[in-house]
Amino acid sequence: MGDPRYSRIAELAVVRGANVQPGQIVGVAASVGQEEAARAVAESAYGRGAKFVDVMYFDPWVKRARILHAPEETLDFVPPWYGQRLLALGELRGARVSFNGTVAPGLTDDLDQARLGRDQLPFIREVGQVVNERTTNWTGVPCPSRPWAKLVFPDLDEEAAYERLWTEVEHVLRLDEDDPNAAWEERIGVLVGSAARLSGRRFDALHLEGPGTDLTVGLLPSGTWMAADFETVDGLRHLPNLPTEEVFTSPDPTRTEGHVAATRPLVFRDGTIIRGLTVRFEEGRAVQIDAETGADALRSLVAMDEGASRLGEVALVDREGRIGPLGTIFYETLLDENAASHIAFGGGFGFLVGDEDKTRVNSSATHLDFMIGSNELSVTGITGDGERVPVLVEGRWQL
Amino acid sequence: MGDPRYSRIAELAVVRGANVQPGQIVGVAASVGQEEAARAVAESAYGRGAKFVDVMYFDPWVKRARILHAPEETLDFVPPWYGQRLLALGELRGARVSFNGTVAPGLTDDLDQARLGRDQLPFIREVGQVVNERTTNWTGVPCPSRPWAKLVFPDLDEEAAYERLWTEVEHVLRLDEDDPNAAWEERIGVLVGSAARLSGRRFDALHLEGPGTDLTVGLLPSGTWMAADFETVDGLRHLPNLPTEEVFTSPDPTRTEGHVAATRPLVFRDGTIIRGLTVRFEEGRAVQIDAETGADALRSLVAMDEGASRLGEVALVDREGRIGPLGTIFYETLLDENAASHIAFGGGFGFLVGDEDKTRVNSSATHLDFMIGSNELSVTGITGDGERVPVLVEGRWQL
Repeated sequence: MGDPRYSRIAELAVVRGANVQPGQIVGVAASVGQEEAARAVAESAYGRGAKFVDVMYFDPWVKRARILHAPEETLDFVPPWYGQRLLALGELRGARVSFNGTVAPGLTDDLDQARLGRDQLPFIREVGQVVNERTTNWTGVPCPSRPWAKLVFPDLDEEAAYERLWTEVEHVLRLDEDDPNAAWEERIGVLVGSAARLSGRRFDALHLEGPGTDLTVGLLPSGTWMAADFETVDGLRHLPNLPTEEVFTSPDPTRTEGHVAATRPLVFRDGTIIRGLTVRFEEGRAVQIDAETGADALRSLVAMDEGASRLGEVALVDREGRIGPLGTIFYETLLDENAASHIAFGGGFGFLVGDEDKTRVNSSATHLDFMIGSNELSVTGITGDGERVPVLVEGRWQL
Repeated sequence: MGDPRYSRIAELAVVRGANVQPGQIVGVAASVGQEEAARAVAESAYGRGAKFVDVMYFDPWVKRARILHAPEETLDFVPPWYGQRLLALGELRGARVSFNGTVAPGLTDDLDQARLGRDQLPFIREVGQVVNERTTNWTGVPCPSRPWAKLVFPDLDEEAAYERLWTEVEHVLRLDEDDPNAAWEERIGVLVGSAARLSGRRFDALHLEGPGTDLTVGLLPSGTWMAADFETVDGLRHLPNLPTEEVFTSPDPTRTEGHVAATRPLVFRDGTIIRGLTVRFEEGRAVQIDAETGADALRSLVAMDEGASRLGEVALVDREGRIGPLGTIFYETLLDENAASHIAFGGGFGFLVGDEDKTRVNSSATHLDFMIGSNELSVTGITGDGERVPVLVEGRWQL
């Protein structure tokens, strides 16, 4: 089945990431260009006794044809069976594996960004519901490809860029360890500990300060912090993103104040790159968005519903992870977010708060992370009494 | 968007084949390896005002992993959302475009043929329901690819084989005419005329005689013959297969007697080739199946349900079509069947009979055509009084 490196990623995703069980249906979300990885996941999952592996290939060129030619008023339409499939996967207690890493960098650069912003595919709102209901054991892993490698390492020739991307992806996935599973157990243990200490302090707010950033993010009274070490409603443990280096919570969507400057570019799933992003918040809402590139696409996104302009997540990343030290910008949020602390527009995670705060967590059809962390970012916790407690200084935990 | 020849096939499929209307959802069934054609259909359909183009890519390598590794008892499982999507497309009065032509010849040759026979994907039983309910306007067209070209023209080098396949596919699609639409109007007119004359004779049975073949196929009292010129329940005309050269009916599934020898190889959608097929029928059922290759896969198929071993279709092809004269074996049933008269195991077409015979039409989750026609095949109609009337002699209509 082609390059054995895909099999090693697939094995990690199936065994340690999603933790696929015998008899499960496995939904695989891949893009055209990620066939080898999808087939390796199928092989691994069937080998573990999966009942069915349902690979859905997303084709960004078909989406491009839509943005270019479809009637304007239809651009936010999603066929009902897209969401129904996902909800059924949840009802049947299926597993899910998705691949990240662009297959078509720059493909949407020349498109009308407002039209592009109306079409969120391959993201669909039911993802948030299934995640919150914790009915599927799932993971996402990076899938190296030549187009992606060329974007990340433009100065290398194609083959060298591709090999370099593989080397770095295997490193951050800890596949260069003798026992990657044990390495992940150890790192996840550290992250779970940090999350527990943060939860224990019950801060009322966080204050984030750094170059271009002076932001206060209010927290919810019953909010807890978590590492990406999840359990389904049936107690099935899974790691939703590999690699993961973050601890995160869902904040109070009405109490974000101040301004932030993104410290890394962010990339929509369809390839639009937003560089030089700055955002100003008032009473929880993003009231001003500027960027060197891609600002229109982002403005269009945050206008899609009431919650899209508010925060659903704040996440802290220490300097002990493997992604930050590489200095590489992967142009892939799920990797880049794990290099640096970040916040996310859109839907939050109801499972992070107590019942009394469930309806206060931000609700939206979208979820978009952007990185604001660096070693120059200081994070301070503010208690209900106004006490200021150092949390993260120069990328080191202070708790 | 790449090779303009794909755009010409897509335009024919969207405009003349499926007859896509503004506001319609268009389901596209493609295989991995047919991306260029799928994107061209998206471009054409969105250009005509389609609401959404939903491309589903089938990956035969994922299926191969399943046949190799999945638990035996799961091999006939199909996730419920596969059928639900198709039924919803019908309820929403969507359009459908599918591509034929293998992308992976020989991929399943080394697999356990009994296991392979239990997995009918990408075929799903709801296709039959939606076709019978006539709720979608649909078509299937050939999609040239390099792997397919190599199978069809093994003696040519890759590039020459690919160009030869394109030339022949464009010829049989009448894309080499100044006005392909007008050429199709003319040919369809001839076929509709032949079908009308056959229907008018109300034969009780057909007798087919040729080398290796002596078969009597009983017909249903209210059965009519049709060319592949369909109308939806809403009166939307569409040509379900392009190219098409056949007239066909659904016979009485209990009154097939005798034996047949296939005159061309037939290919399962997954690439299994059945050569040298002979079948003996008693009281409508295939009671003996032999073949030089692929016999086990076919035996497994006809055992899948009661109707799978009975006939759902008998189709006659004259020698005026464009496929037969080429002498090419395309290893693609939807092309090869239009070179020669054929019969099909499995589900029939309820819309070809009156209400009183609806329940008599063969019912099955599968439908598999195989070619029994040649210029040496004689077809004779037998009336209720036992009169014998020549229908097709040396490939020429006698009616």
